[in-house]
Amino acid sequence: MVVGSSVNLEEVGDQVKSKKQQKKEAKEALKAEKKSRKSQEVPANEVQPEDISVGKYGTLGLIQSTEKLDRKFTDVKELDVELKDHLVWVRGRLHTSRAKGKQCFIVIRQQQYTIQGIVAVNDVVSKQMVKFASNVTKESIIDVYASVQVVKVEIESCSQKNVELNVNQLWVVSPAKSQLPLLIEDASRPVKDEEEQDGLNIRVNQDTRLDNRVLDLRTPANQAIFRLEAGVCKLFRDILLSKGFVEIHTPKIISAASEGGANVFTVSYFKGSAYLAQSPQLYKQMAIAADFDKVFTVGAVFRAEDSNTHRHLTEFVGLDLEMAFKYHYHEVLNTIGDTFTEIFKGLRDQFNDEIETVGQQFSVEPFKFLQPPLILEYPTAVTMLRQAGVNIGDEDDLSTPDEKLLGRLIKAKYDTDFYILDKFPLAVRPFYTMPDPKDNKYSNSYDIFMRGEEIMSGAQRIHDPQFLTERATHHDIDLEKIKAYIDAFRFGCPPHAGGGIGLERVVMLYLGLDNIRKTSMFPRDPKRLTP
Amino acid sequence: MVVGSSVNLEEVGDQVKSKKQQKKEAKEALKAEKKSRKSQEVPANEVQPEDISVGKYGTLGLIQSTEKLDRKFTDVKELDVELKDHLVWVRGRLHTSRAKGKQCFIVIRQQQYTIQGIVAVNDVVSKQMVKFASNVTKESIIDVYASVQVVKVEIESCSQKNVELNVNQLWVVSPAKSQLPLLIEDASRPVKDEEEQDGLNIRVNQDTRLDNRVLDLRTPANQAIFRLEAGVCKLFRDILLSKGFVEIHTPKIISAASEGGANVFTVSYFKGSAYLAQSPQLYKQMAIAADFDKVFTVGAVFRAEDSNTHRHLTEFVGLDLEMAFKYHYHEVLNTIGDTFTEIFKGLRDQFNDEIETVGQQFSVEPFKFLQPPLILEYPTAVTMLRQAGVNIGDEDDLSTPDEKLLGRLIKAKYDTDFYILDKFPLAVRPFYTMPDPKDNKYSNSYDIFMRGEEIMSGAQRIHDPQFLTERATHHDIDLEKIKAYIDAFRFGCPPHAGGGIGLERVVMLYLGLDNIRKTSMFPRDPKRLTP
Repeated sequence: MVVGSSVNLEEVGDQVKSKKQQKKEAKEALKAEKKSRKSQEVPANEVQPEDISVGKYGTLGLIQSTEKLDRKFTDVKELDVELKDHLVWVRGRLHTSRAKGKQCFIVIRQQQYTIQGIVAVNDVVSKQMVKFASNVTKESIIDVYASVQVVKVEIESCSQKNVELNVNQLWVVSPAKSQLPLLIEDASRPVKDEEEQDGLNIRVNQDTRLDNRVLDLRTPANQAIFRLEAGVCKLFRDILLSKGFVEIHTPKIISAASEGGANVFTVSYFKGSAYLAQSPQLYKQMAIAADFDKVFTVGAVFRAEDSNTHRHLTEFVGLDLEMAFKYHYHEVLNTIGDTFTEIFKGLRDQFNDEIETVGQQFSVEPFKFLQPPLILEYPTAVTMLRQAGVNIGDEDDLSTPDEKLLGRLIKAKYDTDFYILDKFPLAVRPFYTMPDPKDNKYSNSYDIFMRGEEIMSGAQRIHDPQFLTERATHHDIDLEKIKAYIDAFRFGCPPHAGGGIGLERVVMLYLGLDNIRKTSMFPRDPKRLTP
Repeated sequence: MVVGSSVNLEEVGDQVKSKKQQKKEAKEALKAEKKSRKSQEVPANEVQPEDISVGKYGTLGLIQSTEKLDRKFTDVKELDVELKDHLVWVRGRLHTSRAKGKQCFIVIRQQQYTIQGIVAVNDVVSKQMVKFASNVTKESIIDVYASVQVVKVEIESCSQKNVELNVNQLWVVSPAKSQLPLLIEDASRPVKDEEEQDGLNIRVNQDTRLDNRVLDLRTPANQAIFRLEAGVCKLFRDILLSKGFVEIHTPKIISAASEGGANVFTVSYFKGSAYLAQSPQLYKQMAIAADFDKVFTVGAVFRAEDSNTHRHLTEFVGLDLEMAFKYHYHEVLNTIGDTFTEIFKGLRDQFNDEIETVGQQFSVEPFKFLQPPLILEYPTAVTMLRQAGVNIGDEDDLSTPDEKLLGRLIKAKYDTDFYILDKFPLAVRPFYTMPDPKDNKYSNSYDIFMRGEEIMSGAQRIHDPQFLTERATHHDIDLEKIKAYIDAFRFGCPPHAGGGIGLERVVMLYLGLDNIRKTSMFPRDPKRLTP
């Protein structure tokens, strides 16, 4: 096969090209190759006079924006039988390579997509070129110029099963060091296989993954997880915008610790000190008092809790909302419930590929939800738990095991992984929570659960400064420290309710993953501050 | 006029209602009124036997979600001649009130919309009710039940100029204290009027505004500014998503100060300490090295600079992006330029009302931009400045006055408020900036300006660990401190470029405002940490 001259081969373009165009492009390609050749760094001993592939392989110099080359690259996911015999340029990672006599099998990876390539000695590919290919380090970024060939037997190990690339040129764009702290193959292995064949396969433990996150994030599952996470954010915002909400930004550096000073990080602030906000709640409420009516904010939230569990982070992304209502906080709670329903529908309809990709590594039970969502009152949950043998008082908070058990009981009874628990006991909620007008043992507050774990907490807030003062006094809170908070309600404020959602928890539980560090791109916990 | 019984009057609904429906609703309204009456707190001395308006006015009790009242409220902005003679419920702020004999003129406000109301003694409104209305404090939230009346002479002082409300019921939902630290009227006054009639009108200075932000944010201009700011965020994200970018979230708490430790806030982190990220750059670059290809993030950025200027904040919202490219960083720069063009078009097309509302208080020159945007190279800018008499060396950075002058020169010559300055001198850029391959006095870096002020800085980053090490050494940077940064590129990384945009600056300069504190909802500067 002669590069660029065979009549049946065409560059892949948007349109069929005229002879003139083809000629022009061939000329340009030649010119580009010449330039590339100039910058190539093939060791002298590899470029021997008898090497028929000179100028067809090597290491590109540093891409420093020397030239604007109008070369069309084809994405791996687009490589299929439709492109049979076409010549394409592909830039991707060298996922694996295996030399075998006069040929070298490679797999090129782009995100979750992979394709097999063959560099084989023939009339345009030299022995030297095959040797060069077999020495390229895994994870290096390479450019290949190759013809698309249909295979007879499906390639099971690649995402592109029906075609392979017959490589004519191979250039290293950015080399990876030869010793990698983890291999993508190992890090991508299905959890099931890890468990079954523990002795045969290499497992990559979580700390190794997180220490080398740049590599770990390259696995198909991670590529999918963080795309789905971006999807949750987009859905959250778009749904709320369609309901008339306004996006706001709230400060993370605050002058006073909002909830009494426990679990708060201190910041040196010029000659004084300040704190990192544990929640945007005060600012959301101020926006309501300032007539923004319905607001949301997506941003970092900080918790200085020394909790080393599967579901705690010291920094996470909060999806927060707050909304004025006319008469009853259920106007807000229904909006929240509806928002979740629409998020779940959006994920199901728009992120099926990502969910499947995650499922190939982790065993994911599909997430079940009801429309409209199930809302239970706290006493009902207490009754269910008691019937299951749990010893819990009317006004006790739910322990983590209680929550999980309740999740299982509700799943069994209602077949839903998502539900809202309304009317929490007043005693277990913060001072600003509006008491239930009918029974002040309870309150106008709610938690929301996915697969038995809490992902959101919220309430109607007390919007009357006098009542707020009474409740704070009842909680023995130093009024001087919350003066700014109470003062925000002195100029008229509509009744309002809201809540805060932990983004990483939503993604973890939606996908049925076992650790929140899997859904935080660069997680922070009491023991981890890097990378 | 008899409430709810006149045949010509209809509740405003989505559809024309059947008699049966009307009857049912009237019954429900009556029931609701009865309940309201029960919870009203009209002082005993006002409820006298001869008061024909008993049960038609007063203070609602605390709205504690006692009942789910299905009462339809009409937004002020929807009140127009179409609703002539309709009876409507409106909940809004008491903007102003003026008692005059047997009647009280009020203005009700909802965000930027206002309507006049009249409470006048007649066959259903008593003297006592008029007195009560005239005593309601400004900024209280009130419910009125009123008929929409077409006026003969336009009401200049309200947004709804052709109709007014003839009030039949008036209830206080949430009272404001009687002494307000600022009046919305004063805080909304056009800047021009302030300047012309300094002696007559009360000015509200910036610190008073910021100290009482809950009130200040209620001005029409502020309502519009922060809606437009939300629009910039939405446009930025939607445009980038349509170009294949993925949204990521980067940690704000970091273990090492990325740029040498100057201007960075320190955080106590359990038994150790950490820093607040001055930029998400390292994490964006790691996402690129991890094959996310094109990423953006919107989030808090922290700068511990003791700069008390009109354009510096210690915490601001960064709109950051990073993108792998094939051969030339202009692939990225053109994407950025195009993104701005689309943002400006989106603002112009979707936020015209907001721009006009801001223009009523502040004199705003329309923002001009070219398609495609103007890109100048640094030496061209230096030449323009020299021709204007500025003494500047080839490799000097631009001072703030230089930038402003350059903005005026470019506006005069090209009629654009937006331009990109490419190819900054290498000497004035950080160590990770890719040098220009043709002339290493310069670099592959750019700043972007709006009305002569910088709103974005960016560059092609060095993606080769060895070259990065060389450049860091050249800058006398302790290699140990940036080890993690350099290591991120050891496993293969595509060439990439990006940049960070300051959201508040974009909004300030787009609207032609004079201070960044006007476009940060709760600004943080070296002297301000509250509210």
